[in-house]
Amino acid sequence: MNAIESLVAELGRLPGVGRKTAQRLTYFLLKSSREDARRLARAIERVADEVRVCGGCGNLSDLDPCEYCRNPRRDRATVCVVEEASDIPAIEKSGNFGGMYHVLGGRLSPLDGVGPDDLNVRTLLERLRDGVREVIIATNPSVEGEATATYLHRLLASTGELRVTRLARGLPVGGDLEYADGVTIAEAFSGRREM
Amino acid sequence: MNAIESLVAELGRLPGVGRKTAQRLTYFLLKSSREDARRLARAIERVADEVRVCGGCGNLSDLDPCEYCRNPRRDRATVCVVEEASDIPAIEKSGNFGGMYHVLGGRLSPLDGVGPDDLNVRTLLERLRDGVREVIIATNPSVEGEATATYLHRLLASTGELRVTRLARGLPVGGDLEYADGVTIAEAFSGRREM
Repeated sequence: MNAIESLVAELGRLPGVGRKTAQRLTYFLLKSSREDARRLARAIERVADEVRVCGGCGNLSDLDPCEYCRNPRRDRATVCVVEEASDIPAIEKSGNFGGMYHVLGGRLSPLDGVGPDDLNVRTLLERLRDGVREVIIATNPSVEGEATATYLHRLLASTGELRVTRLARGLPVGGDLEYADGVTIAEAFSGRREM
Repeated sequence: MNAIESLVAELGRLPGVGRKTAQRLTYFLLKSSREDARRLARAIERVADEVRVCGGCGNLSDLDPCEYCRNPRRDRATVCVVEEASDIPAIEKSGNFGGMYHVLGGRLSPLDGVGPDDLNVRTLLERLRDGVREVIIATNPSVEGEATATYLHRLLASTGELRVTRLARGLPVGGDLEYADGVTIAEAFSGRREM
């Protein structure tokens, strides 16, 4: 396979990148400077070489413990449980949370053969011994995410004093009521608050 | 900048890849095996190192002359002129053309400051001396592509015996008349053929 075909094939393995997109990206890289293309190659290699799973929370980071686990100013009494490491930057960007994270590495999905043992739950239970007072479950508002939240809630409810919360559901800010789906509107009604 | 941020930034430079897509691709690479990620990095480096512009036709290839220019079974009397090297695989896939290619490296676009001198036209004129009997202009059916075709036609019409043709325009096969734009339908009418 020549160099062009092999890059089209490799790019075509990426999610959401079909053969046409892979070709377009390949020709873009061909037309950009060699230095630009090499910089992208080096960035990919660096990620492959340097990034590891944080032993504390399961986050992906080039540090272990990761930047959140080693930050002494974060509130160790609150743990936010997410499905994937990629959820963390979105939460950090909201600027609203200063506690710790815990990455499950997926969600319960019997159809895909993902059960409780495939998730990073055991280390979560271990962490809770160290003075955690609240677990915020921030799995996705999908069927699997809800099932995972329910499972975690049951598991953690038996752990004494612990407060277990779930992120609110409702209308997305900046969204349009007219285009919101019925389930979201129903959630927004049942979760309505005094003004 | 840590390894993850730097890969997000590099991927974000690709065309059609915004920050969210770059993040999604980065986490995909993080979750795939190191070997998969390294293979992609190597494919990019190989393209940067090995691919060059063919001195004969302007195609991008790891061979110079490229695979089409060096193939003795291709018909040297017919030259298909395309805007970009990335147009060639599409034509090859149609399986209908066995002649030579010529890559302009762009199209006339006065608004973007692209004039005739910025295109690979001089070498085209040189090639025509070697017994070429037909030039098929396969620039895109866009305003700039049409302008480029008209320019080339005028330039080549003065070259004696040469036949200069343009790819047919009309309804795309598998398309739907109901959704075709008016200009395409008008072209399909004016180019209609006896059945």
